[in-house]
Amino acid sequence: MRAKAYQDKLDIKNGCVDLSHGSGGRAMAQLISGLFHEAFGNEWLARGNDQSAFDVRAGRMVMTTDGYVISPLFFPGGDIGSLAVHGTVNDVAMAGARPLYLSASFIIEEGFRFSDLKMIADSMGEAARAAGVYIITGDTKVVERGKADGLFISTTGVGVLPDGLDLSAEKARVGDRVLVSGSLGDHGVAIMSKRQNFAFETEIVSDSAALYDLVAEMLAAGGGGIRAMRDPTRGGLAATLNEIAHQSGLGFRLQEEAIPVKPAVLAACELLGLDPLYVANEGKLVAIVAPEIADAVLAAMRANPLGRDAADIGEAVDDDHQFVQLSTSFGGGRIVDWLSGEQLPRIC
Amino acid sequence: MRAKAYQDKLDIKNGCVDLSHGSGGRAMAQLISGLFHEAFGNEWLARGNDQSAFDVRAGRMVMTTDGYVISPLFFPGGDIGSLAVHGTVNDVAMAGARPLYLSASFIIEEGFRFSDLKMIADSMGEAARAAGVYIITGDTKVVERGKADGLFISTTGVGVLPDGLDLSAEKARVGDRVLVSGSLGDHGVAIMSKRQNFAFETEIVSDSAALYDLVAEMLAAGGGGIRAMRDPTRGGLAATLNEIAHQSGLGFRLQEEAIPVKPAVLAACELLGLDPLYVANEGKLVAIVAPEIADAVLAAMRANPLGRDAADIGEAVDDDHQFVQLSTSFGGGRIVDWLSGEQLPRIC
Repeated sequence: MRAKAYQDKLDIKNGCVDLSHGSGGRAMAQLISGLFHEAFGNEWLARGNDQSAFDVRAGRMVMTTDGYVISPLFFPGGDIGSLAVHGTVNDVAMAGARPLYLSASFIIEEGFRFSDLKMIADSMGEAARAAGVYIITGDTKVVERGKADGLFISTTGVGVLPDGLDLSAEKARVGDRVLVSGSLGDHGVAIMSKRQNFAFETEIVSDSAALYDLVAEMLAAGGGGIRAMRDPTRGGLAATLNEIAHQSGLGFRLQEEAIPVKPAVLAACELLGLDPLYVANEGKLVAIVAPEIADAVLAAMRANPLGRDAADIGEAVDDDHQFVQLSTSFGGGRIVDWLSGEQLPRIC
Repeated sequence: MRAKAYQDKLDIKNGCVDLSHGSGGRAMAQLISGLFHEAFGNEWLARGNDQSAFDVRAGRMVMTTDGYVISPLFFPGGDIGSLAVHGTVNDVAMAGARPLYLSASFIIEEGFRFSDLKMIADSMGEAARAAGVYIITGDTKVVERGKADGLFISTTGVGVLPDGLDLSAEKARVGDRVLVSGSLGDHGVAIMSKRQNFAFETEIVSDSAALYDLVAEMLAAGGGGIRAMRDPTRGGLAATLNEIAHQSGLGFRLQEEAIPVKPAVLAACELLGLDPLYVANEGKLVAIVAPEIADAVLAAMRANPLGRDAADIGEAVDDDHQFVQLSTSFGGGRIVDWLSGEQLPRIC
């Protein structure tokens, strides 16, 4: 993301992105300096190079990437910018690593309004500062009208692992507890409600949030007893636990009444024909932990505002079929399978 | 990029991407394991986590990102996959850093053919292996038909800097030589020719290539005398030298007859109404070097197949206007300004 202010300021109020803003010339430099550097402001971007350098100490780092194609771009509780920061720092954090630096690649449709782009960039900058990370390098491409849907963002995050920490789903053991950090389905239902223009009595707000502080507090409380963590984004809790089941070779047995779902989200799910277990979250995590530390970790989670509604929802069991099973309060049960079709497009 | 083969193989010959391949469920896992892991195959992806970890030694690292929206996706000399590897490893290499790891974020339009996606993924895998880097983490999103143009890829690269190396345009001094590693304009003209269905006597082929080995040989020959390197991609040599001029506060004076341009590229540029100085390259670099080491660096460049046609094309001069000037063989001159409009959309 090279830039300096080489000419007049952008007309952010009335202007739009055109193809010249992706051409490598003066207009692109102007867009980058006038809008992105302004929003992300840090010493790395100010140098104006195509890459940024940072110091590392000897150890292990993690790297992760996500593309964001959410529609609509603005939704209750966030926008594509804050989501592109939270989603990626959370994937770093799920390894137990401290997120440090992000890159951001913007693919913009010709005609996109500067004012919207500025709101999104400002929101990214704010989310990054709140999460303690820096957006140190980036790229902007512009495609012709009709060749993209407004704006897509891909962010990549790097972070550092504490010495010796190696969380992985393979480490799950029979008897391990399954903890979730709060209510499920908020993000996906917020997006779907906005998309369908539903007005509920209570506005449903995305849970989009950066989870590293919560993770650090859980690690401090649980130490080596934490086997694995995942953020149940696309495909929701169902996809996440099925993945962990396949990676670990175990099954899971969950107690339906222990799974936190907000009444408004449950009501909206009934209206929309959705199952909250399959709906994306962007500010929640699932942790598989040794039974002897489960209470301590749960207490640490509940002490953090982002884990206030944390719950122990079930356990890992021996199961050659690697099924995720749900026991209902009526004594019945069902298998929570992978979603085989497509439930919610462009939720993240 | 989570995955394991949870069900039947993809029908790569006849199948297409649909929205379920981006939904976080079984179809997505199948696409990732059956196509991307197959092509990129490495131990990191095999673990199936949302992030990958690697060891680092104490020192400095660099990070860079680029989005690729090139149209058409396949062109003489490469495709969007090889380009997405070369472009990003080159941005790492331009800092003098050894590229190590890449992430890849795919945004795919519904209906995109598996067979095309496989060719592109295979090409990425091959380019990565040739460049000595690993694609260790990724993401796949699918958008509805008409909401993207086939396929967009964003890659992010990290690499390690040799101790004490800090290349930067600010280090340029009056009298420094400007070296280019070979003929200009090949990539952009290859794309435009393909796009316009032009048939020239000689097929013009993209120069897309990974440049780290060349960079390492230049550093070995030139040591601390190399001030800065850039790959003249979008906006071509003109944009790159104008950027360096602004960063360093100097001007540049180039000798037109010293600038290598292939006759076929020059002819195509005349036909297409393009100036080769503004046309993107994807396998070339510009280096600003101290005059006393210029000949040694040039010799090192010419000893590498990717620098065979390297040339010394001019020098840095004192100029408050920070102009890039071209002296023609007739004794005349002109200013090579920034491109102010948009010349070549979606060339990378």
